[in-house]
Amino acid sequence: VTAILDEALVAHVGFVAEHGPVVIPTTYGRVGDTLYLHGAVGNAGLRAAAGGRPLCVTVTLLDGIVFARSAFHHSMNYRSAVVFGVGRAVTDPAEKAAALTAIVEHVAAGRSAETRAPSAAELTRTLVIALSLAEASAKVRTGPPVEDDDDLGLAVWGGVLPLTLVPGEPVGDGIGVATGVPASVRGWQRPGA
Amino acid sequence: VTAILDEALVAHVGFVAEHGPVVIPTTYGRVGDTLYLHGAVGNAGLRAAAGGRPLCVTVTLLDGIVFARSAFHHSMNYRSAVVFGVGRAVTDPAEKAAALTAIVEHVAAGRSAETRAPSAAELTRTLVIALSLAEASAKVRTGPPVEDDDDLGLAVWGGVLPLTLVPGEPVGDGIGVATGVPASVRGWQRPGA
Repeated sequence: VTAILDEALVAHVGFVAEHGPVVIPTTYGRVGDTLYLHGAVGNAGLRAAAGGRPLCVTVTLLDGIVFARSAFHHSMNYRSAVVFGVGRAVTDPAEKAAALTAIVEHVAAGRSAETRAPSAAELTRTLVIALSLAEASAKVRTGPPVEDDDDLGLAVWGGVLPLTLVPGEPVGDGIGVATGVPASVRGWQRPGA
Repeated sequence: VTAILDEALVAHVGFVAEHGPVVIPTTYGRVGDTLYLHGAVGNAGLRAAAGGRPLCVTVTLLDGIVFARSAFHHSMNYRSAVVFGVGRAVTDPAEKAAALTAIVEHVAAGRSAETRAPSAAELTRTLVIALSLAEASAKVRTGPPVEDDDDLGLAVWGGVLPLTLVPGEPVGDGIGVATGVPASVRGWQRPGA
């Protein structure tokens, strides 16, 4: 579970709103056995998630498309982690700061040391939710297609097309003080990969 | 919404189970204003989703990491679509077959013509759920970081690192009848991209 959480960048957070389920994408960070989500204090979805309600946070890494000889056996290679729990709003300033650092570091290792740290006002404006990893599971599919024996006589290619999230060329915003592209950007790779 | 659905490969389906929300990743297809999900008839999550309960299906394309001069203004460029509705189990054989074709074609354009079509038994073993796109919304973030004016004097790089899902080299399973890598695999690109 932790390996999958560390490698993915986006989590899908599910909670139950008045009219039914809601699933929102968000970044996150991990410190030990705790997952941290964050957002603006005004974020209705996140506020709902912090209100002591049950959450389900799912993270999925898509590793490849599985091409089978039959339409039926087509599949995806993937790794997913599902975390169930009740969100806890983080109020302790030290835990909040550590959680936000973890979120930035998760997205781009080394970045937190390069940037201006959050001010007291920014910390106040940020809602951080902690979720224990105690109730979590992982699901993984790897390898070639499963085939029916009868289909192996068909002249159809079977195999896997691997997929990877790849960084492109950094695009500077061209304002402010001119600087080189820093290590956290230049050397970025999918976390944990 | 449809452009986002067409380009992404994995949806996160949220529904409310006995003990709270559940979010599961799955592939999908689109025909007009209907989204189709599928899975084994024995798939408990999918069965729950088909049972006339409210669903939330969220699809997220991660386009880049937004590096700001402050930790606070870091963000992601993304496009997400959120669909709310009640799932309908598809029983009409023609609609079911069309939905499954749409799912295969969504993942790899041209593939359904290369493979063996589903047998009657396979159709029976497959649960297909239709979800109307009538209640759907999209959310998009693009462009450079938002910065506080005061931070523009800092010697910190600000900009975007684009991210793209890229196919690697196809890996054939090396069994059955020897064939070349077909067009759907060799020419694969992120759908709609």
